[in-house]
Amino acid sequence: MRAYSRADEGLGFLLRYENVAWYDNGAVRILDRRIYPIRTEFVTCRSHGEVAQAIADMVTQSAGPYTAASMGMALAAHEAAGRADILDYLKDAAYTLSHARPTTVARMEAITGGCLKAAERALAEGHDPEKAIFDYAIGLLEHRYTRLSHTAVTLVDQFPKKGVVMTQCFAETIVGTMLREAAERGYDIRLICPETRPYLQGARLTASVAIDQGVDTTVITDNMPGFVMKDQKVDLFTSAADAICMDGHIVNKVGTFQIALCAHYHGIPYFVTGAPDKKHETVDGIVIEHRDGALVCDALGTRTTKEGVKGYYPAFDITPPKLVAGVATDKGMFSPYDLHRYYDGEEQGLYTTANA
Amino acid sequence: MRAYSRADEGLGFLLRYENVAWYDNGAVRILDRRIYPIRTEFVTCRSHGEVAQAIADMVTQSAGPYTAASMGMALAAHEAAGRADILDYLKDAAYTLSHARPTTVARMEAITGGCLKAAERALAEGHDPEKAIFDYAIGLLEHRYTRLSHTAVTLVDQFPKKGVVMTQCFAETIVGTMLREAAERGYDIRLICPETRPYLQGARLTASVAIDQGVDTTVITDNMPGFVMKDQKVDLFTSAADAICMDGHIVNKVGTFQIALCAHYHGIPYFVTGAPDKKHETVDGIVIEHRDGALVCDALGTRTTKEGVKGYYPAFDITPPKLVAGVATDKGMFSPYDLHRYYDGEEQGLYTTANA
Repeated sequence: MRAYSRADEGLGFLLRYENVAWYDNGAVRILDRRIYPIRTEFVTCRSHGEVAQAIADMVTQSAGPYTAASMGMALAAHEAAGRADILDYLKDAAYTLSHARPTTVARMEAITGGCLKAAERALAEGHDPEKAIFDYAIGLLEHRYTRLSHTAVTLVDQFPKKGVVMTQCFAETIVGTMLREAAERGYDIRLICPETRPYLQGARLTASVAIDQGVDTTVITDNMPGFVMKDQKVDLFTSAADAICMDGHIVNKVGTFQIALCAHYHGIPYFVTGAPDKKHETVDGIVIEHRDGALVCDALGTRTTKEGVKGYYPAFDITPPKLVAGVATDKGMFSPYDLHRYYDGEEQGLYTTANA
Repeated sequence: MRAYSRADEGLGFLLRYENVAWYDNGAVRILDRRIYPIRTEFVTCRSHGEVAQAIADMVTQSAGPYTAASMGMALAAHEAAGRADILDYLKDAAYTLSHARPTTVARMEAITGGCLKAAERALAEGHDPEKAIFDYAIGLLEHRYTRLSHTAVTLVDQFPKKGVVMTQCFAETIVGTMLREAAERGYDIRLICPETRPYLQGARLTASVAIDQGVDTTVITDNMPGFVMKDQKVDLFTSAADAICMDGHIVNKVGTFQIALCAHYHGIPYFVTGAPDKKHETVDGIVIEHRDGALVCDALGTRTTKEGVKGYYPAFDITPPKLVAGVATDKGMFSPYDLHRYYDGEEQGLYTTANA
């Protein structure tokens, strides 16, 4: 299997800022975002099961798992090459990869389902299913980049020409794309992001994307947004979402709700980026992932509490539509109370904006 | 100078949970709370200037600085022993110690002013001013313990017999006292506390006080209170305060405001403990201390951000009275809109409840 070599500028931009998982020659290589930028290391997965485990272990986050899953499907096709039951094998792999983390199963199924169809088509036409899945994965990235660019335009239309934007957690591609869009317009934007404990995605990843683009970037701890958005005259708060329910509820990294509430209190709009999820008609079916509480009692490898103290780690929270000023999509801005209109005249495709 | 040897149970309790600064024989020894409980180490100060520096450096927090300041005044008297201008020397020392941190100057001046008067009296009567200040410092601790016990009764009157209490940052003496009061009543209370980045006072200190008393204690990260208070059915939120303005505004560790806002949103009462500060008639004179932003880009000694990323560190925030259900004091519960009544018939003494 070849490495991807197209020189598309937009995709190159996305790959640079996303540090995506990559399939090549029987292995998926994933940047270990748990320790980046302190150290730049990669996790090499030699089976789709190892890819699922890496996703579960949060080696990659944000949109990373979606790319890892599609690349993991290419790896599964490599594992099953020549087998008569290759499609059954791929279906099992799709299930395993889609269920690596509970909160994003619907979007994962859309992606692994698309990989399955690409393999089916290839087999029917006598082509290599491994190559077909890999090309499909690249197509997903390209399609996502296009949608991200449109979404960034929608979002940056709300930015002041000179001002302060707060964001939350690691939405690298939309953060990178929105900052580039703002720079191309000549806007003078300062970025403030909370550090996002316990994984510190904000400090380690989001801030790195912004500083790499030369943006004035400030990190605060997660107890400060409410004070800082007033003190530093923040103009707007924006985040991506792990799920945008059709009823306007936003599921995103824990902390989003309380920042959105503070923004509402201070009269600062909160714009969420992404596409509404038809698979979540209401918030009722949302399962909030709980991770190992021990991770909360740890700071970069040092235990912070006495023995006996427990940690508790819900990874996501839910923000109700009344705290959301708008959903910025590739098709423009939508009210959180009017998300069905996004799908007027079309079916939700396999290509989702996947956490951006 | 003798070490303190009285066996008072209440004071012993307070000393155990507060790990106070202690003056003995020309030195003030302060538990280094910046690294406790990872390591138990003490900072030894051989001049009152070193005590002020230790306070500025956050070797001790919460009520610790007040004790450190009074012990620092005893040390200043030791430094100036036999000098004709000892009172001028002590006045300078009082200024230095009171201004070690900007947010608590008023309370610090009340304490160092009391020390000055004790020294003056001793000199007039031919007694040792060093011993007089030390005894005054012990008297302050005993007085504070008594008031804390009464405050804990006021607060625990609002607890359910079985339930969940959330607290914020390190208010060790009132946390310890309230948990003891609840245990004596046979209440079954679980404690949840955010970790309080960047110093992790919640994880390292508050949680240690609670687990030492055998209380079921859970730490969360600072982005979680809004979600967890609903998810875990928190019954009430309580914190101490660095200042309770007479107009009902609460100045406390950064994060308090956003937790109070979330509590209000979820219909959970927020009770603040302490005495109103007559020196802050309104919130207008409050100076929010800003500490070195580099501390935000650090987790227990490891840098969390790329070079070029800035940190921003306001140490306190302000919670408006509309988010405060009540001010729990040694004289009972007060509305945040009715704090002058606390002083009906009396002048604010030198003894403040100092962050508890």
